[in-house]
Amino acid sequence: MQTILRHRRQKLAEIIDFPAILWSGSSSPRNFSANTFPHRANSHFLYFAGIPLENAAIRLESGKLQLFIDDPHPSSALWHGETPTREEIAAKIGADEAKTMAELGSYLENVATLPVQDATTWTQQTQLLNRWVLPKNPLEGIDLELAKAIVSLRLTHDAAALVELRKAAAVSITAHKAGMAATGKAKLEAEVRAAMEAVIIGQNMTNAYTSIVTVHGEVLHNNHYYHSLQLGDLLLADVGAETQTGWAADITRTWPVSGKFSSTQRDIYDIVLAAHDACIQNIAPGVEYAEIHLLAATIIAEGLVDLGILQGKPEDLVKMDLHALFFPHGIGHLLGLDVHDMEDLGDIAGYDEGRNRSSRFGLSYLRLNRPLRAGMLVTIEPGFYQVPAILNDPKIRDQYQYLVNWERLEKFADVRGIRIEDDVLVTASGSEVLTASLPSQATAIEDLVSC
Amino acid sequence: MQTILRHRRQKLAEIIDFPAILWSGSSSPRNFSANTFPHRANSHFLYFAGIPLENAAIRLESGKLQLFIDDPHPSSALWHGETPTREEIAAKIGADEAKTMAELGSYLENVATLPVQDATTWTQQTQLLNRWVLPKNPLEGIDLELAKAIVSLRLTHDAAALVELRKAAAVSITAHKAGMAATGKAKLEAEVRAAMEAVIIGQNMTNAYTSIVTVHGEVLHNNHYYHSLQLGDLLLADVGAETQTGWAADITRTWPVSGKFSSTQRDIYDIVLAAHDACIQNIAPGVEYAEIHLLAATIIAEGLVDLGILQGKPEDLVKMDLHALFFPHGIGHLLGLDVHDMEDLGDIAGYDEGRNRSSRFGLSYLRLNRPLRAGMLVTIEPGFYQVPAILNDPKIRDQYQYLVNWERLEKFADVRGIRIEDDVLVTASGSEVLTASLPSQATAIEDLVSC
Repeated sequence: MQTILRHRRQKLAEIIDFPAILWSGSSSPRNFSANTFPHRANSHFLYFAGIPLENAAIRLESGKLQLFIDDPHPSSALWHGETPTREEIAAKIGADEAKTMAELGSYLENVATLPVQDATTWTQQTQLLNRWVLPKNPLEGIDLELAKAIVSLRLTHDAAALVELRKAAAVSITAHKAGMAATGKAKLEAEVRAAMEAVIIGQNMTNAYTSIVTVHGEVLHNNHYYHSLQLGDLLLADVGAETQTGWAADITRTWPVSGKFSSTQRDIYDIVLAAHDACIQNIAPGVEYAEIHLLAATIIAEGLVDLGILQGKPEDLVKMDLHALFFPHGIGHLLGLDVHDMEDLGDIAGYDEGRNRSSRFGLSYLRLNRPLRAGMLVTIEPGFYQVPAILNDPKIRDQYQYLVNWERLEKFADVRGIRIEDDVLVTASGSEVLTASLPSQATAIEDLVSC
Repeated sequence: MQTILRHRRQKLAEIIDFPAILWSGSSSPRNFSANTFPHRANSHFLYFAGIPLENAAIRLESGKLQLFIDDPHPSSALWHGETPTREEIAAKIGADEAKTMAELGSYLENVATLPVQDATTWTQQTQLLNRWVLPKNPLEGIDLELAKAIVSLRLTHDAAALVELRKAAAVSITAHKAGMAATGKAKLEAEVRAAMEAVIIGQNMTNAYTSIVTVHGEVLHNNHYYHSLQLGDLLLADVGAETQTGWAADITRTWPVSGKFSSTQRDIYDIVLAAHDACIQNIAPGVEYAEIHLLAATIIAEGLVDLGILQGKPEDLVKMDLHALFFPHGIGHLLGLDVHDMEDLGDIAGYDEGRNRSSRFGLSYLRLNRPLRAGMLVTIEPGFYQVPAILNDPKIRDQYQYLVNWERLEKFADVRGIRIEDDVLVTASGSEVLTASLPSQATAIEDLVSC
């Protein structure tokens, strides 16, 4: 670990010529101060420090790392047991120096930083640096330079990161298989969620994000689990694990509660799968991710034309954002220490210098718009959804009355939401799907559900 | 629900003659702003509003409730589906009026409040009320009066609260049985934790606090789960569910990994159980909770004298805090919407007016010091721990050299930590153990583990 951490900070030193301090952050309280949410160390801190410390900071300058952390209070041994000393932690992460948090005050000159998420820490950052350091403020000056430098490193993953990312993927795959296997006996969405999250907890990992396990996949960020499972339902599960050092996986599968897709469900499923497979086949260094998005859009439009749901030339339909009636989100995003990697920095990581979000309905939710490079990890997650807020909108129905066969669409009422999502590493020769051992073909999925 | 909520606010109006605004709070970000921890509404808000709203406030005056919440943004239907309107929510909780959050600004005169835990909301509270409202600041003036009034209501539970508290208890009992049943096949603490939490997730509930599932029970707040389970180990599990409207359970059991206590483990277990049973038998209205604590201390001291570990008269040993070498925490705490109920208000709920924490080692961690009243729900959780930080302290070993038979103690090296915790409702005639259907006797526990 020490070697890779040293390598990461040396690479940082090649880009910036000013010191940087990164804070780990501290636990956020839930309903009272002693009852906190599980601590999640800041991702930029984790990238350079390697382990999830709490109430700590690291100062990086010219490839050197100073660790700032207080030794535990003597009474802490009663409640928390023997915990490593500052010197032991410093040795573990290969710090060049180890100091108390109070000593941080002597090392602040011309220092850049990035805000953390918890108020205790950003208050401390703001006070120490004597300027506002808030997660919601746009970055400026050397803070912005630091952000861009870290983005340039974190955009592609080194070998140590990939070891962790593969672990997260493997456990997430097992979780999805457990969810499929549990569906037959489950009465509620919550029970399938439980089977999936139990795999993650049992491997001593955590969820990288709040699970979506729902028979209402058309609600894109559905965090309810109270619906009962009906035999004709599709169950959409978007669940991913995070390793102890913070690296994430992000997988979605959609399966029939009964173990068997209806013919209409199968028709649409195969369109989404075709888009998914084509996107993955086209991933390679130099390819524009926005092109991958448009490829998915085109294949979905094509499939819907073939089914008689849309009318027109697929390419033209995509230009008019017709695909977005059914596929309103982007084809995916960066994945790494964050499930939307580096989204705490806004679009600095997701959008190449000089590019901005499109205002077009079919493109505005695209989170990544860069040429791909070997070492990047992205999700590929096409979907099909019948969102009432979109499809029942009188303006939309009027605008697209000749392009959508609404009557034909009604035949597909048992397809509320489908998404198929995998984690794809860009390699020198093309791509490697880290989550490939979880089947995505309809028949293979059916076999896992009926197991 | 509306009837009980109306009753609660009418009772509040009998105590205070000024208006109060309670905020629900908002989600706390995890590693970036869109990736939040699951929202937990503020407990005081939940007590009067009944449902876990987000970014909402209620204003209580003379028994009337005004709800302040914004209707969802139109684009929200895409991501979050159709959500209830302000008027629908108002009808559900029996609000007398419903307004936007912006309108809150017109209703601030002479208003008391209580701080919430998340920075977004306490910043809003501070700005609107034009005074510091911070979770860490001591309460003053009408805020303090409001806190005392709410404490006086929340100290005892009404029928609607008890329905929820019994639900939380029932699911937690199932979770503990699942943990015992899973121990035989489990290799890691994490796997037992997973089996327990899966029960809670599967019932669409959440953990009321971070689970403790450990073979190192001597670390009191042990939130690690990486140890492997060895046949001679005791596994201590402190796991409790919280219902969707926020009501908590809090249960600890300790069981042998092998399914069979060793004779030394059994000896100590039976002492802790004797203390547990005696405390519960003595709970009744009018009894001082501190006396219950001292009763546990005395029984533990007595048991350790009988085993030859301590030497002296039990009552004298307790006066010298000898019991606290092995039982360093309090016998329990209030339980309700918070696992340590109302601990966000410091000791206002836990300590009767005019009482303060003792500085004595054996009493300083006692969280509750009041005469009991019918309707109070408390935990009873005696324990025995061999905490290295205490027992290896040269000062302690010197001070107590004639009172502890250190050689005899060594025979009990396979007893690192035991705790038995139940949730006990004070009733008019004595007490009712809400968690009684989970066995606590050693033999019954062994039967559940070997299942």
